[in-house]
Amino acid sequence: MAHIQLPPGLPGIRGLLAFRPETAKPIGELADALLHAPNTLSPGDRELIAAHVSKLNDCAYCQTSHAALAACLLKDETLVTSVIMTPESSPVSQKLKALLALAGRVQQGGRAVRPEDVDRARHAGATDIEIHDTVLIAAVFCMYNRYVDGLGTLTPVDPGGYLERARFVATHGYSAVLQAPIDPNI
Amino acid sequence: MAHIQLPPGLPGIRGLLAFRPETAKPIGELADALLHAPNTLSPGDRELIAAHVSKLNDCAYCQTSHAALAACLLKDETLVTSVIMTPESSPVSQKLKALLALAGRVQQGGRAVRPEDVDRARHAGATDIEIHDTVLIAAVFCMYNRYVDGLGTLTPVDPGGYLERARFVATHGYSAVLQAPIDPNI
Repeated sequence: MAHIQLPPGLPGIRGLLAFRPETAKPIGELADALLHAPNTLSPGDRELIAAHVSKLNDCAYCQTSHAALAACLLKDETLVTSVIMTPESSPVSQKLKALLALAGRVQQGGRAVRPEDVDRARHAGATDIEIHDTVLIAAVFCMYNRYVDGLGTLTPVDPGGYLERARFVATHGYSAVLQAPIDPNI
Repeated sequence: MAHIQLPPGLPGIRGLLAFRPETAKPIGELADALLHAPNTLSPGDRELIAAHVSKLNDCAYCQTSHAALAACLLKDETLVTSVIMTPESSPVSQKLKALLALAGRVQQGGRAVRPEDVDRARHAGATDIEIHDTVLIAAVFCMYNRYVDGLGTLTPVDPGGYLERARFVATHGYSAVLQAPIDPNI
């Protein structure tokens, strides 16, 4: 049971967004700017970073949601599981491996990032914007994960709802969820 | 030196906001909704929570900025130092002590929050919105702190700039900083 009285039936962050529309708006816009807007990092790769950080923070709702989104965008569920569990040995580019490792440092703390973590990403071809966005995606998920679990929200075990929502967000973005009719499946 | 090429002379998060206006807008709006908008928790008390979490995350720039803001709003620098260093023995209400302790749990991780942490705040008079906002302020500073330090931004040692910016933000809010002419002092 959640630690505060939330609208019934809305899992994870969705109940929180419905509870507090004043903060929901910038939270949705930040997710869209980082994960959904055009970028030299593909939406699928950005969702992999989000799912990886959520796994490190042990946030089951966010890990499952963003893994479902990554699988929906990359059309490869096995790859997504491999990246989340063992990023260094997963079949992705050296650049994405370096960005996942950088995100992992950020999850530990801002001061845990070393110049060599950034150098590795740069030598693998990452631009300043890509390094910036990776650090910010990791930092933002350290927020979302704490928000979702810190208020004890509902984590559904049925994968169906996550898949429905993943398809919706992959097409329409995050802010669109806030404007959609309240439906626990999206 | 920062890990990426940022506009020169802008310390802490300010260089990052200037570097990436697309994410700066929702980041500023989220800070305004949580820290500056009308709330049953005073702006000074909310800045104390922000400074406390920044101290726990060892983020000198954010701790100094938000301590300066709290001191500016509460007009009591000694109180601010006391809350940041030893919140449980500081001369603030039982409710604020409980909210500071709850924020400290969130800083450790979302799953570190126990029902008794929330119960303590509720028994001291905190409402659901105040509990929600405290958890989200703490989560948001786990993002800001990682963003600022994870990209190795500049942390000025001179307190003058922090005080100037605190006076500006206390009056005009966070988003106003983004629209102001680029001036390292605000």
